[in-house]
Amino acid sequence: MAVSFIVLAAGMGSRMNSDTPKVLHNIASAPMLHHALTAVRALEPSRIVVVTGHEAALVAKSAEAFDPAVDCVLQEPQLGTAHAVDMAAPLLADFAGDAIVLYGDTPFIRPETLQAMLDARARHSVVVLGFQARDPGRYGRLVASGDSLEKIVEYKDASDEERAITLCNSGVLCAPAKLMFELIARVENNNAAQEYYLTDLPALARAQGLSAGVVICDESETLGINTRAQLAEAEAAFQARARADALENGVTLTAPETVFFALDTHIGRDAIIGANVIFGPAVTIESGAEVKAFCHLEGCHISRGAVVGPFARLRPGAELAEDVHVGNFVEIKNAILDEGVKVGHLTYIGDADVGEFTNIGAGTVTCNYDGVMKHRTKIGKRAFIGSSTMLVAPVSVGNDALTASGSVITENVPDEALSIGRAKQVNKPGLATKLMARLKAIKAAKGKS
Amino acid sequence: MAVSFIVLAAGMGSRMNSDTPKVLHNIASAPMLHHALTAVRALEPSRIVVVTGHEAALVAKSAEAFDPAVDCVLQEPQLGTAHAVDMAAPLLADFAGDAIVLYGDTPFIRPETLQAMLDARARHSVVVLGFQARDPGRYGRLVASGDSLEKIVEYKDASDEERAITLCNSGVLCAPAKLMFELIARVENNNAAQEYYLTDLPALARAQGLSAGVVICDESETLGINTRAQLAEAEAAFQARARADALENGVTLTAPETVFFALDTHIGRDAIIGANVIFGPAVTIESGAEVKAFCHLEGCHISRGAVVGPFARLRPGAELAEDVHVGNFVEIKNAILDEGVKVGHLTYIGDADVGEFTNIGAGTVTCNYDGVMKHRTKIGKRAFIGSSTMLVAPVSVGNDALTASGSVITENVPDEALSIGRAKQVNKPGLATKLMARLKAIKAAKGKS
Amino acid sequence: MAVSFIVLAAGMGSRMNSDTPKVLHNIASAPMLHHALTAVRALEPSRIVVVTGHEAALVAKSAEAFDPAVDCVLQEPQLGTAHAVDMAAPLLADFAGDAIVLYGDTPFIRPETLQAMLDARARHSVVVLGFQARDPGRYGRLVASGDSLEKIVEYKDASDEERAITLCNSGVLCAPAKLMFELIARVENNNAAQEYYLTDLPALARAQGLSAGVVICDESETLGINTRAQLAEAEAAFQARARADALENGVTLTAPETVFFALDTHIGRDAIIGANVIFGPAVTIESGAEVKAFCHLEGCHISRGAVVGPFARLRPGAELAEDVHVGNFVEIKNAILDEGVKVGHLTYIGDADVGEFTNIGAGTVTCNYDGVMKHRTKIGKRAFIGSSTMLVAPVSVGNDALTASGSVITENVPDEALSIGRAKQVNKPGLATKLMARLKAIKAAKGKS
Repeated sequence: MAVSFIVLAAGMGSRMNSDTPKVLHNIASAPMLHHALTAVRALEPSRIVVVTGHEAALVAKSAEAFDPAVDCVLQEPQLGTAHAVDMAAPLLADFAGDAIVLYGDTPFIRPETLQAMLDARARHSVVVLGFQARDPGRYGRLVASGDSLEKIVEYKDASDEERAITLCNSGVLCAPAKLMFELIARVENNNAAQEYYLTDLPALARAQGLSAGVVICDESETLGINTRAQLAEAEAAFQARARADALENGVTLTAPETVFFALDTHIGRDAIIGANVIFGPAVTIESGAEVKAFCHLEGCHISRGAVVGPFARLRPGAELAEDVHVGNFVEIKNAILDEGVKVGHLTYIGDADVGEFTNIGAGTVTCNYDGVMKHRTKIGKRAFIGSSTMLVAPVSVGNDALTASGSVITENVPDEALSIGRAKQVNKPGLATKLMARLKAIKAAKGKS
Repeated sequence: MAVSFIVLAAGMGSRMNSDTPKVLHNIASAPMLHHALTAVRALEPSRIVVVTGHEAALVAKSAEAFDPAVDCVLQEPQLGTAHAVDMAAPLLADFAGDAIVLYGDTPFIRPETLQAMLDARARHSVVVLGFQARDPGRYGRLVASGDSLEKIVEYKDASDEERAITLCNSGVLCAPAKLMFELIARVENNNAAQEYYLTDLPALARAQGLSAGVVICDESETLGINTRAQLAEAEAAFQARARADALENGVTLTAPETVFFALDTHIGRDAIIGANVIFGPAVTIESGAEVKAFCHLEGCHISRGAVVGPFARLRPGAELAEDVHVGNFVEIKNAILDEGVKVGHLTYIGDADVGEFTNIGAGTVTCNYDGVMKHRTKIGKRAFIGSSTMLVAPVSVGNDALTASGSVITENVPDEALSIGRAKQVNKPGLATKLMARLKAIKAAKGKS
Repeated sequence: MAVSFIVLAAGMGSRMNSDTPKVLHNIASAPMLHHALTAVRALEPSRIVVVTGHEAALVAKSAEAFDPAVDCVLQEPQLGTAHAVDMAAPLLADFAGDAIVLYGDTPFIRPETLQAMLDARARHSVVVLGFQARDPGRYGRLVASGDSLEKIVEYKDASDEERAITLCNSGVLCAPAKLMFELIARVENNNAAQEYYLTDLPALARAQGLSAGVVICDESETLGINTRAQLAEAEAAFQARARADALENGVTLTAPETVFFALDTHIGRDAIIGANVIFGPAVTIESGAEVKAFCHLEGCHISRGAVVGPFARLRPGAELAEDVHVGNFVEIKNAILDEGVKVGHLTYIGDADVGEFTNIGAGTVTCNYDGVMKHRTKIGKRAFIGSSTMLVAPVSVGNDALTASGSVITENVPDEALSIGRAKQVNKPGLATKLMARLKAIKAAKGKS
């Protein structure tokens, strides 16, 4: 059975105290909306519709950045959850499959849970996702018998007996798309807020003789985020899980509590990750690579045997082949370092290709920007770039070539050539002492005046 | 009613196991004494008197650094808390207002609590600050009825019934200054330690028909620090509060538990602070600025739209205007960076002024020290400083000027000029291969010998 | 009485999900095997025998790296703990003293506990180490009366009454070496796994009229490590203890929870250690030195009054004398910095000697590698190395000498000389504006094409 998803992401999230719409706040370097979309995409849906509202353009842009196939519809004004879902009617009312409604601010729902809801559709027309709440508080309660759902009761309308129920409503709901929109058409807004609520659907279904069911997930999956404090807790929960998973998968984490993963970090078995390593988006690390302490990695690939850091920054497009060594205070951006390349200290390599076994001296800079455009540097195999070489791109250095330390390289260096661009050293006997004496005299004179 | 404060800061703090006097150990980058003084100063007191003793000169210097208007008096020898307060008599005995005695090693007292004590003076002659202790242990107990204080009982003198009391004495006390010194004159030292205790004051007041009262604060406010372990707990408590406050105020903290604030850090709403950011004293960050991971900031200002880090260090006097970008392995000290300036990589800018939209290449250094004096570098607007330019101060680079990468700039560069100071590149064909062969031969020969 | 130790380290540790043998996984920058060996060595044993099995060569290499006097014996195949101990028989069967069996994967056992077992040998022939388990689970139980041990009962063989016992078997065992091997010879393998278990020894001893005793240690000492999650917990436990010890010893830790110690870190009283400092092996820091935030230290010594960081990396062989200052983005390797040397910014000093009070400018590099060999740089006293000086080793700079910033120094600089190797600066009026205009035109043309 085909499935489509409706992701509600219209809310302002005023308790976040932010100009950024709530669903665009990050967890693990990705907007929380992307977390929900990642779970959704795992089910290979026919269609994903995001309902936007507050800062709709920004939210739509982020959704499309995640996947251009996502459709966005605008809810304006915002008249409740059933009304929000109804905005997707033009796209899904004729969809011959199931639809699941979920939320852009509940990032931790698992694909397995969504699949369980689809499976439960074999037994029930409408399926609601519930959870056993440790502290049920003011959540809506699910009055159920086995996996059969009698009704959803709002806390304020609940009897004492009903309030004693700990099975609560997550708000996530699954039904055949056509049925969903038919039922929504019958939802009324005769409540204090004059809003249309999706929670009315199970009762409306049962009223016409259809059955409603409940699927239960862990409370942590339904965690909704309303404040920055909750966002921080969600980040901590994500990281705790990611660290435990990494350990379980055989990654060596020297100090797991100091490592921060992104949603899409991939690390191989027996890779070693030191303390205080931060993964931005799109990092893959092969088995047996090592990242030392204090590294900041984004959009890069580190191959087996490579050693990075401490104090290294790899930016998007940094590709490190096997046994590459990137040392301290080194930045690599949009550059391919072939097997065995060494960049030990205080260097910026940007927009460059470096051939295998080349050694790059301390203080080297690829001068990739001329003030207007960016240019590429190409360095051959087994080259030796002397310390503090300025490689003024576009420029190339050949295989087995050598640049003298302190040289500014503006023209291509042929294979096997030595390139040198520096003034001859001159020693001036006694001049240091004279100069210093003069400087001290000036300072003393200044002190007096 | 005017108020003055007496801050007791004479103790050695021997359990700190340190040559530094206890009240000068830091919490949130400020001596704990400054925390107490910050609370005190919020009440705009007529006078603040710090009673010093152990390492008096160091403590006095720190108190005066906080505020030159603070007066310090020396307690020598140290004969108890009443004796310590009495040292302030020459300055405050004639003060026609209230005096509050508090402690340099209880840094978390809130101004609101001190104000509540002043307010309670409307009802009582002497006001004592108490707290409900989770574990009363050996604290002195407050025998009170409502906000009326009968007496303070030391633990060792307390009956079983009194020991069951959980309302404990913080030691903080408020009374009209004149009354305070009159009562202190009657305190006796007939106890095991032969010391004069301030805790005798309420009973002495009541003995002459005056009323004593109690104000209750949260136990966390009265936290006293006696060991480095307690200091670490106090630091953790401060940071937990500061992080929660920042989130509440709309600051984005990617990983709040890794960010360390100073006592006086100010961060605007929707500013983004990455993981592992450390704030030293006197940092202000405007709304919408971003500080990436691994930054170390002191005495600096970061304006809206500016992006700093990762791996950046801003030192005192770093002023970043709007949209400035300071990248990785960059140090900025005592320098003003105008709007839109970019300093991306591996650079030291010290004692400098940089005009708007100027771009500073990787590896640039302002050579501000000649071995004797420091000098200033001035760079104009829209200038382009090539990579690894050495700017030997005092020197200036004009508007729209350009320095060639690898140049050492010792003379001023006019507006719109290109300045270049480097040797011409020469390629020597085949020489790299020959040189390497020779080096390998030398090494092989050494290996044999 | 002489003592020898048998350390069992043959297991594969399959639950670690690693190609590295379990006992070689690190805690506090040292293989967990080294932790056990450190405790053992404190008792000045006659002999230490490590029983290897899985990846025997790697384990033996690590054991010998710890102490070349350690003997390794191979257990192949692996037929139980008694069988493992029996592998040491060729070395210890005639040893006229006690032998203690312990484990390479229980790193936290204390020397005091091992000594207590030896002391208990005055009363008992065989001594077993037990612990009161918070959750006894499936541990073997010790049926004991006072310090007299009746028997060890495996959980699966235990009666309900015996399962109620919370005194559990750690597996650590002490006996006269000769007796130990005699008893082992009588151990049978008539159990499900067909293995020979060391736990049979107390019963065998009692069967021949000898007494068995029990020594009790804290459960944390017997913590065994089977998974990476447990390894992470052990690391956390080690660090918590090390941080508490450092505070107790008078070290100032700004943020103790962010500092990671190695097994052999030594820090003096009133040294200041900032947040996010990582100690690799073999670091000593004297009283009154300061290490600022974000430092990575290995194999180095920092003397009184020296200030390091933030963002500094000291590698093996970095020796900092009194009052040395190493600043941000500086790497020091195998170099001796005499009193008062300053290396403030963005510098690599490797394989060098630097004389007292010398100042090293930002961006300086000791070019210690010529592509084949490493060479040493010598800098005298009170020298001034200008910013971005390249010191092409082997080379020396004399006392009171000066190098001009941007110079490449390939020949020795005499005392008091000024050495300069740079091209003269030339300003080309208006050329910057022309160049930029041309670049913009090129870009515009490209945009059109």
